[in-house]
Amino acid sequence: MRPPYARRVTKMKASEIRELLKLTKKPDIISFAGGLPDPAAFPYKEVDMISTQVIEENYVKTLQYGTTEGFNRLRRQLAKRMKQKLKCNVSADEIIVTSGAQQAIDLVSKVFIDEGDTVLVEKPGYLGALSSFKLFQAKFFGIPLDEQGLKTEKLEEGLKKYKKAKRPFLYTVPTFQNPSGITMSLERRKHLMEIASEYDLVIVEDNPYSELRYSGKEVPTLKSMDTEGRVVYLGTLSKVFAPGMRLGWAAAPEGIRKKLVLAKQATDLCTSSLIQYTSYKYMKDGHMVRQIKKIKALYKSKRDTMLDTMDEYFPKSIKYNRPEGGMFLWLEFPKGIDSRVLFKKAIKKKVAFVPGSAFYVTEGEGANTARLNFSFASEEQIKEGIKRLSTLL
Amino acid sequence: MRPPYARRVTKMKASEIRELLKLTKKPDIISFAGGLPDPAAFPYKEVDMISTQVIEENYVKTLQYGTTEGFNRLRRQLAKRMKQKLKCNVSADEIIVTSGAQQAIDLVSKVFIDEGDTVLVEKPGYLGALSSFKLFQAKFFGIPLDEQGLKTEKLEEGLKKYKKAKRPFLYTVPTFQNPSGITMSLERRKHLMEIASEYDLVIVEDNPYSELRYSGKEVPTLKSMDTEGRVVYLGTLSKVFAPGMRLGWAAAPEGIRKKLVLAKQATDLCTSSLIQYTSYKYMKDGHMVRQIKKIKALYKSKRDTMLDTMDEYFPKSIKYNRPEGGMFLWLEFPKGIDSRVLFKKAIKKKVAFVPGSAFYVTEGEGANTARLNFSFASEEQIKEGIKRLSTLL
Repeated sequence: MRPPYARRVTKMKASEIRELLKLTKKPDIISFAGGLPDPAAFPYKEVDMISTQVIEENYVKTLQYGTTEGFNRLRRQLAKRMKQKLKCNVSADEIIVTSGAQQAIDLVSKVFIDEGDTVLVEKPGYLGALSSFKLFQAKFFGIPLDEQGLKTEKLEEGLKKYKKAKRPFLYTVPTFQNPSGITMSLERRKHLMEIASEYDLVIVEDNPYSELRYSGKEVPTLKSMDTEGRVVYLGTLSKVFAPGMRLGWAAAPEGIRKKLVLAKQATDLCTSSLIQYTSYKYMKDGHMVRQIKKIKALYKSKRDTMLDTMDEYFPKSIKYNRPEGGMFLWLEFPKGIDSRVLFKKAIKKKVAFVPGSAFYVTEGEGANTARLNFSFASEEQIKEGIKRLSTLL
Repeated sequence: MRPPYARRVTKMKASEIRELLKLTKKPDIISFAGGLPDPAAFPYKEVDMISTQVIEENYVKTLQYGTTEGFNRLRRQLAKRMKQKLKCNVSADEIIVTSGAQQAIDLVSKVFIDEGDTVLVEKPGYLGALSSFKLFQAKFFGIPLDEQGLKTEKLEEGLKKYKKAKRPFLYTVPTFQNPSGITMSLERRKHLMEIASEYDLVIVEDNPYSELRYSGKEVPTLKSMDTEGRVVYLGTLSKVFAPGMRLGWAAAPEGIRKKLVLAKQATDLCTSSLIQYTSYKYMKDGHMVRQIKKIKALYKSKRDTMLDTMDEYFPKSIKYNRPEGGMFLWLEFPKGIDSRVLFKKAIKKKVAFVPGSAFYVTEGEGANTARLNFSFASEEQIKEGIKRLSTLL
């Protein structure tokens, strides 16, 4: 039979990039391609201990359905962390717990995107968000980045140009961006908030990495600068606990939060109670703060190793940034070099990265760029992998 | 600000029924309203033991991102159970692991429903599925049930009537249906498969309860009768393990399964690895089979207690069925009685059920019906609750 698929999936296919990425998963390849935390640093003893504790303390609740909004004590814990660490004046009521931040993106898509709407995105931008927006049949207006982050004057041009189109929100990863590692400067953030106010724009601030700062000065979150209830903040424990938990959240103004909850109810009823209780205790008992300290030292050293090796072995014609945190850095090859071609050569040398074009919404852009992850591979592998790459350049 | 919501959520609001159900959660109320398993029977010692085992055996994988399709050994285990117990000739490749069966419904909606499509549903039907289809802006064609289940001749009438409309699928819970407790007879199943073949209809078979049979004879799943690749089967461990795990799955023909995986990738990347490994081991080590035996005895006794008490105390004018399994039974009051009015009186007597109108897609239908859950309350509470209800009738 020919199933009567919805339009949103008829043209959908496994992206070229995901096919390429399958090649990076062979065990003998040094991979700078994925966005994985270093599993050697997973707090597995803590998970083991805590999961036993929460089951023994209250198995009736940890194994039962929970409310759609999420476990209240976890919501309070998340609000507290946002207040203390990110200076966000957020109450537990504004928080909805999600199955990873990716689900928060899915709920945002459901609540805001009509077919044909123009979503404002960064170019390059986070692939998982772009996939979600595409699934909801959005069009895109891409805003370029420079070393200060989102080029806000380009955003303003776009808002003028798309004055009459429905443009549901701007999606941004302002700190240690995926894929570029770039952090939006304070000036740009201020300008962005002004523009948002002038054009009545909703901002979706996705912030998975800000706890992972290795150098430089903290920059305030957009959420902390929001006095008009226009920022929907997305958070995750994937990088500061473990991705296999699938624990994320959104913090949103009351009206939006309510819509997100109604959408989540029809999406998966609730996030796993066992995962929520374990995550709560992990935060409350101070394990998260210790874990962040541990992985910051680990990833800082890896970043430095990668940059040092690149400084030593890469030709001067190749540009790259020096991110102050997160998990990624961004390469720019001389014009005319296609990083997809380079990727295939690299795979033969048993080293992998992600060709930058994957992160652009417009075909043909970013052909001479690449994303490198420095959190997953060991330091030895980083040195060896970068040397191998350098032989291709 | 006035956020630029998508059309699909602008009219969305907390359903009347969900507001009513909040009243049922007060601790002193005997509730036949929810659809909860009895937490006293949760296999919490097993969860505690297994979660420790899977973390110690392989924390690198249990705490890391997994593939979108799901953990392969779990997929094989689910396929094996479907083969042995449900006579479904399904391979592990056809299975996608989801965050509860509700997520499988969300993915089915994404893959099949365009705005304005007519989804064929049972009336009464499962509320969570109806909510998901509504979120994707479906219209409904409701097919009534009798004691043999779905009235297939009405389905055929509908298919003739909606010949030109896009009708993406029929959604059905054929065994121990939620809300009615009715099981579709073998004759009706055969007729349904014939009609589906004639009209080239996709069938979504949601089967959360068939492992919970207390009396009567097994009826084959629609999936096991499907020779043309038109049945998408949805399963869950919520009733035979614990709902707080959020572990479900879909088994679908290759083409459909691929679309479901692409949709899931954009929805939440993957289901919690920790939950998947724990669920795998729970099945593999025989805990699930033991658990099913235990809860079948428990729920059978509860069902019998509820029916016995109703037989003794309810007036003859009230009709109810005697389900052979599952968690629900269905009441029909004399015409003219509004079960929502009765609900409010019942709450004052500290006993709760769900007014049947909640399960109908057409306003005004099912006003004189009600759903009663018999798995959650204790036997003492069941006796007392039914007596209290009887004083209102």
